[in-house]
Amino acid sequence: VDVRDTGEFALIERLRALLPAPETGALVVGIGDDAAVWRAESPYVAATTDTLVAGVHFLPGRVSWSDVGWKALAVNISVIAAMGAAPAFALVTLALPPETPLADVEALYRGLGECAGTYDVAVAGGDVVAAPVFSVTVALTGRVRASGDAPVLLRRDAAQPGDVVGVTGALGGSAGGLRLLQGGAVDGVGQALVQRHMRIRPRVDAGEIAVKHGVRCAIDISDGLAQDLGHVCRASGVDAEVRIDRLPLAPGLAEAFPEDARFMAVAGGEDYELALVAPEDVLREVDAALRAQAGMPDGEQVTIVGRITGEGEGRVRVVDERGAGVELARRGWDHLRR
Amino acid sequence: VDVRDTGEFALIERLRALLPAPETGALVVGIGDDAAVWRAESPYVAATTDTLVAGVHFLPGRVSWSDVGWKALAVNISVIAAMGAAPAFALVTLALPPETPLADVEALYRGLGECAGTYDVAVAGGDVVAAPVFSVTVALTGRVRASGDAPVLLRRDAAQPGDVVGVTGALGGSAGGLRLLQGGAVDGVGQALVQRHMRIRPRVDAGEIAVKHGVRCAIDISDGLAQDLGHVCRASGVDAEVRIDRLPLAPGLAEAFPEDARFMAVAGGEDYELALVAPEDVLREVDAALRAQAGMPDGEQVTIVGRITGEGEGRVRVVDERGAGVELARRGWDHLRR
Repeated sequence: VDVRDTGEFALIERLRALLPAPETGALVVGIGDDAAVWRAESPYVAATTDTLVAGVHFLPGRVSWSDVGWKALAVNISVIAAMGAAPAFALVTLALPPETPLADVEALYRGLGECAGTYDVAVAGGDVVAAPVFSVTVALTGRVRASGDAPVLLRRDAAQPGDVVGVTGALGGSAGGLRLLQGGAVDGVGQALVQRHMRIRPRVDAGEIAVKHGVRCAIDISDGLAQDLGHVCRASGVDAEVRIDRLPLAPGLAEAFPEDARFMAVAGGEDYELALVAPEDVLREVDAALRAQAGMPDGEQVTIVGRITGEGEGRVRVVDERGAGVELARRGWDHLRR
Repeated sequence: VDVRDTGEFALIERLRALLPAPETGALVVGIGDDAAVWRAESPYVAATTDTLVAGVHFLPGRVSWSDVGWKALAVNISVIAAMGAAPAFALVTLALPPETPLADVEALYRGLGECAGTYDVAVAGGDVVAAPVFSVTVALTGRVRASGDAPVLLRRDAAQPGDVVGVTGALGGSAGGLRLLQGGAVDGVGQALVQRHMRIRPRVDAGEIAVKHGVRCAIDISDGLAQDLGHVCRASGVDAEVRIDRLPLAPGLAEAFPEDARFMAVAGGEDYELALVAPEDVLREVDAALRAQAGMPDGEQVTIVGRITGEGEGRVRVVDERGAGVELARRGWDHLRR
């Protein structure tokens, strides 16, 4: 049974049934009318969109469709988290080759629905189109905190000389997982890395705590820390330095890739942790608040890995423990360049 | 020069420069940060998304990239109009084959920007990804009218026995234009039909006037009147009848396609006019208000073409002037079926 057999309208009905019932009472019109309608739950709205294309952003056959569904929504949640906002409403577009098995689309929607349920996102609508190549596009809104009449945000352009650079969680696991997927067979420890590549856990918790504690500058680590921090530095007119030996490595990464682990952590991308830029004492408070919330008094939730060195044109220097510059074969991802 | 030469980040900068400066003061963070941020200008928000895929939804080489850009946004505006809402903020996703000429993407953005300027839409952000096939996806929000604390909408599920069915403007022009494009060379009159296929003019004016005058049920005509009215009837639990001889035909259509014009008008699709369902006196008021606004005292702006015959399972019967049933080879579009 493929999607030509069900047709567009019956498929939409089936997919709708796979989604969790939205928790929010703010959804006025959901899937089935021309447009979705909801009540804005905050005066300010954050919005983002991201696409996964088969063969470009994931390897069909190597990963499960439910993992693809989870990731399609989760990458958008990560961007909303990086603004310090809380995810709210999603629109989902499926571009389907006619021979797409119905079971694959349903599995994708189950994974997407799991992610929606976990992060309290209401899937409010979307679109299904025929296309020669499979892709899934999610557009997601988020509720922005306000202080009085002003929005309170984590922006790219708010880094200042004297700030330090912290990262949440651990890095490099996603790049390690991708390398394992590309190689073929994956063992037990490897599976954990693959999970970090597909079942990403966007840091909505860290974004909300950061903005509450006065952090005003952040980005999510999607293209690789060196490159993403470069976006922050260029937008802020500053330069930065990152200590490659201080990067918190994903569990199992150093064992699986002893040569490359540090490079995966600084340039691998797709970890979807947050890079936070703020005065050191502020990041220490965020770290303490995250540890308290996680019930983990020991171990760092935010690791300080670098600093803003001064005003500049957006240069990020990666250095080792002796302060010597480290050459990166690639700083991160550009999705179009040869 | 293709998009591999510019790369993702420089391309986004170039495209941003092609967009009109947003009129609204409500945009807090535009293109360039992680997510866009805006101030919600109404308590209720409508949202929709639609995709155009090269070779599926348009014929590359036969249409201009600027027309594709206009249409990509305009089809979404039409859906917002069909809810009785006013378009507001858009996110644009481009999926680009690596060999895409930069000039094509820029032309697309010029057309999209023209449409944004015409309909007062702020393009707030988006995404650029590599893909084997070109597509453009727009997600669009709209401001919904409220009466007290309740949203006032044009919904699919509000048709009632005794209501009549009216359509704005004229029908079939888009289908005629598509047929001409598929055939090759297009003459002067034909160009006007092709314009109706690509440079569609969503009826935000009609949606707003309809909702203001008490209409509560509508849909935009994207898949063809017979099929779109079927969506309304199923959602509302009613049946309907459409008089094929009463359909207002696009100028030049009957001359270009004497045999098929009526069928193009009832099942051709992509006219992006509105089908309004309401008591007859209400639609007469909407017609008068639209004529007054257009400064055109003569000629119908809303043509009554059918009626809701009673409660039912969503059947739409197409009849001729003698009330005899008309067989349609195809009722409209399903985007997946064989």
